[in-house]
Amino acid sequence: MAANINTLRTGLLRQGHTPRFCATVKSDAYGHGLRNVLPGLKDASALAVMQLSDAYDCRMAGWRKTIVVLGGLGDESEVGMLDLPNLHLVITHAAQIDWLAASLIAQPDLFIWLRFRGDIGLTGFDDDAYRKAYARCSALVAARRIAGVGHLHHHASAERDTGIASADARFRAVVSALPGPCSTSNSATVLRHPDHAAQDDWIRPGLALFGASPLAHRSACELGFKPAMSLHARIIGVRDLARGESMGYNASFTATAPTRVGIVSCGYGDGYPRHARAGTPVQVGDHLTRTLGTVTMDLMTIDLTGLPETKIGHRVTLWGTPELPVEKVASAIGTIAADLFTGLTRRVPLIPINAV
Amino acid sequence: MAANINTLRTGLLRQGHTPRFCATVKSDAYGHGLRNVLPGLKDASALAVMQLSDAYDCRMAGWRKTIVVLGGLGDESEVGMLDLPNLHLVITHAAQIDWLAASLIAQPDLFIWLRFRGDIGLTGFDDDAYRKAYARCSALVAARRIAGVGHLHHHASAERDTGIASADARFRAVVSALPGPCSTSNSATVLRHPDHAAQDDWIRPGLALFGASPLAHRSACELGFKPAMSLHARIIGVRDLARGESMGYNASFTATAPTRVGIVSCGYGDGYPRHARAGTPVQVGDHLTRTLGTVTMDLMTIDLTGLPETKIGHRVTLWGTPELPVEKVASAIGTIAADLFTGLTRRVPLIPINAV
Repeated sequence: MAANINTLRTGLLRQGHTPRFCATVKSDAYGHGLRNVLPGLKDASALAVMQLSDAYDCRMAGWRKTIVVLGGLGDESEVGMLDLPNLHLVITHAAQIDWLAASLIAQPDLFIWLRFRGDIGLTGFDDDAYRKAYARCSALVAARRIAGVGHLHHHASAERDTGIASADARFRAVVSALPGPCSTSNSATVLRHPDHAAQDDWIRPGLALFGASPLAHRSACELGFKPAMSLHARIIGVRDLARGESMGYNASFTATAPTRVGIVSCGYGDGYPRHARAGTPVQVGDHLTRTLGTVTMDLMTIDLTGLPETKIGHRVTLWGTPELPVEKVASAIGTIAADLFTGLTRRVPLIPINAV
Repeated sequence: MAANINTLRTGLLRQGHTPRFCATVKSDAYGHGLRNVLPGLKDASALAVMQLSDAYDCRMAGWRKTIVVLGGLGDESEVGMLDLPNLHLVITHAAQIDWLAASLIAQPDLFIWLRFRGDIGLTGFDDDAYRKAYARCSALVAARRIAGVGHLHHHASAERDTGIASADARFRAVVSALPGPCSTSNSATVLRHPDHAAQDDWIRPGLALFGASPLAHRSACELGFKPAMSLHARIIGVRDLARGESMGYNASFTATAPTRVGIVSCGYGDGYPRHARAGTPVQVGDHLTRTLGTVTMDLMTIDLTGLPETKIGHRVTLWGTPELPVEKVASAIGTIAADLFTGLTRRVPLIPINAV
């Protein structure tokens, strides 16, 4: 992850400006486990999380620098939890400002980011509502109840060459008259629009930190990223199916030729997608092979035809090697790397390696 | 869950025999959290889990009765962890017997279940291999190194009217000559083939305990089961889209008519499937409505057109009420209830209610 931060930074350095680096670690660090990833993020200036309770988790895990809470306040009672040093809070709707105005004891350290709704169209403020929200937050600054106000934007189509121009123009038309730092760039924006990202005061990449590509047509390897996670399971059974023999619930797989089958200790109960079709790539030793039949709660089956050396106890890699990057698996399943990462369940032990 | 056990038992009582009841709680109790479900399972005689480490978790959580480890031994080192009272171990391949024979210090309490592979065709032993494995385990019993040996079977097609007859005939042809108790019935078998299940010494239902139907064409309500879990999130934004307006990554949703949109604090990072298509049912108050656009990591969007009273902070139910049973959601998404349950991630707080 440290190398991936460096790769992202180097790309921006060429643009002659280096924004501050906020590492987006929402959803338990994209499924990697917050505590596991902190050693690799020590060069970042801030962490971005979803909920205020996550900010407390970061503090408990030893993070002393800035924490940005992307989801803002869940309800008014959370105003009482804002007495955390170096806290940045994203405001996503007007009631959150009402709650601050009504209940906030002065927090001279607390920095507010207003979320511009933009073309993704989810939470945040549109043009006039944004100006009004900014004025209300500025009044809190003037009253020394908060430290300052910045502008946050998230692009809906950053992967596309022409994906950010019009949304950015709308954003600039509103914020150019309003003092404060800007943060507008996720991984896809940093990689696809580095000239734009270099103008940011803060960038906040997520997916690329974990070594996955945020761009549909560029691999992580091409972009210079290294996987932070690999997922492994064990062979717990091997059997030979004759042509025409079936297996699985409701005989979901039938061998069309003599087939050596490996039974693997990973299923949808671990977060491997149940909707992964037969043929999804998996790796055994140096060989790429494929799933067979349907993923069950505890097991999946793979094709070991032509791999007679593979035995019970051997390791199977489900993603995260140079030969089998997570994007390749995601693409075969019809989803994205972030979905696979965050889908891992409590049952999967996260084992940190090479922590610095 | 106590009521669901009772419903399953009552069905079998009509058959004039009551097998002992083993509650299958693998995959962290189908995502419900092992500690949350134990109070509801106090009338069960045993728990079934996947791994030996799970058996230790059950003991730590206060369960003193029998624990069945369905996955058997992961490797030889686990033989040293078998000194747990009331432990039952399922043997799924011959190397596990090698490990026991080589390393097991006498555990006069340890009961072994041999897994018959059957037509599901995954782990376990086929006919001759089964007889050989039974002979080896019987030798361990004779040497007073283990307590006894039983016969375990799992049907591949129990949902079907004619789904178990031929597999059961193969199983009986092998085990009828071999003393020991039998366990052959999951939830679907108990419900679809109660006459068969009533002959079991142990039944081991899973899904039905949690109040979901294991049968594709019978609802849990019809079968008399009550949901053990409901999943809720909050409205964190409301907006009105004009006809033709878009939102989401790459404008994934475009309103075909004026649409009031609710933004909801649940996404694929919580385990709600990313592949859930627009139109998946959700519940707001007493009203059933539907998702719009694509599920993101942290958010989903729902249709609030015609529900003008719904505001930020209001609750949205994603499954687990009489109006919105989990099977209805699973069916709309093209999956099964067990996939939704076990897919919930670490980020979702599990809040026990009505614990007895």
